[in-house]
Amino acid sequence: IKTQRCLIVRPFWSQVLVNIGNHFDLKASVFQAPRRGIYSFSFHVVKVYNRQTIQVNLMQNDYPVISAFAGDQDVTREAASNGVLLMVEREDRVYLKLERGTLMGGWKYSTFSGFLVFPL
Amino acid sequence: IKTQRCLIVRPFWSQVLVNIGNHFDLKASVFQAPRRGIYSFSFHVVKVYNRQTIQVNLMQNDYPVISAFAGDQDVTREAASNGVLLMVEREDRVYLKLERGTLMGGWKYSTFSGFLVFPL
Amino acid sequence: IKTQRCLIVRPFWSQVLVNIGNHFDLKASVFQAPRRGIYSFSFHVVKVYNRQTIQVNLMQNDYPVISAFAGDQDVTREAASNGVLLMVEREDRVYLKLERGTLMGGWKYSTFSGFLVFPL
Repeated sequence: IKTQRCLIVRPFWSQVLVNIGNHFDLKASVFQAPRRGIYSFSFHVVKVYNRQTIQVNLMQNDYPVISAFAGDQDVTREAASNGVLLMVEREDRVYLKLERGTLMGGWKYSTFSGFLVFPL
Repeated sequence: IKTQRCLIVRPFWSQVLVNIGNHFDLKASVFQAPRRGIYSFSFHVVKVYNRQTIQVNLMQNDYPVISAFAGDQDVTREAASNGVLLMVEREDRVYLKLERGTLMGGWKYSTFSGFLVFPL
Repeated sequence: IKTQRCLIVRPFWSQVLVNIGNHFDLKASVFQAPRRGIYSFSFHVVKVYNRQTIQVNLMQNDYPVISAFAGDQDVTREAASNGVLLMVEREDRVYLKLERGTLMGGWKYSTFSGFLVFPL
């Protein structure tokens, strides 16, 4: 059970740094909760050489929970960051969705992390 | 005791996502620690269509612990973010204070999260 | 063991807020892991009155794990932020490195936090 507490994706090197319990689906980039509890999620999505505004949503079962923005036109790299504690039911799906704009350089430098703070 | 470990406010939908233990006072937006320990706090305060610089302080018993800034004039949405681990005594009060500037759109999109990492 | 779970440096007041277990070397600003496990690290490095772009790397044993950027020329204070979950071996060294640019105002307002999520 302890080994089910942790996930992360860091898409820069197309590599997951930590995926304890294998609850992060690499192809879909979706975390599926192994158990009910309070989870901490945070993300930093980096916009590279892109004059568009981006909006990134953290989704829980297709419902947007929190948003982050990056909209500076004169900056080569800028991050849309946010983080949250979430009550998650078993088998809930949590993932990032690019709601607005495009990531021309892909998800380079971006991170998405989460872990179980405590079970319920 | 386990159920006293967690709080969050996300003021966008005037809704607290998680408030385990009811230690977050919704009206005052102040967290009062149920017990002594190390807590993790993080916040992302979003400035919307506002040319002023904002400074947000994380306060512990009326003492500023850390600050965050957002000062871009040409951006529609920009976040002042920071996070910290804090040694907190029982009944200490932890909250956010807008030290400089105004949030014209209110606390929309902003988040404030905290949880007990371990008790002391 | 419980008391070995936590570190933080906040260089603004040249002060470490929390350094449980004394695993953070203040002079070198390097965290040395007391045990194997999954750690959460996050940092917010604030650039003050500086037109240069900065790049901050989180290093694990001289290997860059994640990067953050701040590159706005017109902003008085801007943070390069990121966070990550890391699998850390006993005695691994984790620290921040300013890969590009300079911090003219020093590490004022910057934070670097980490704690053991669970041991392995």
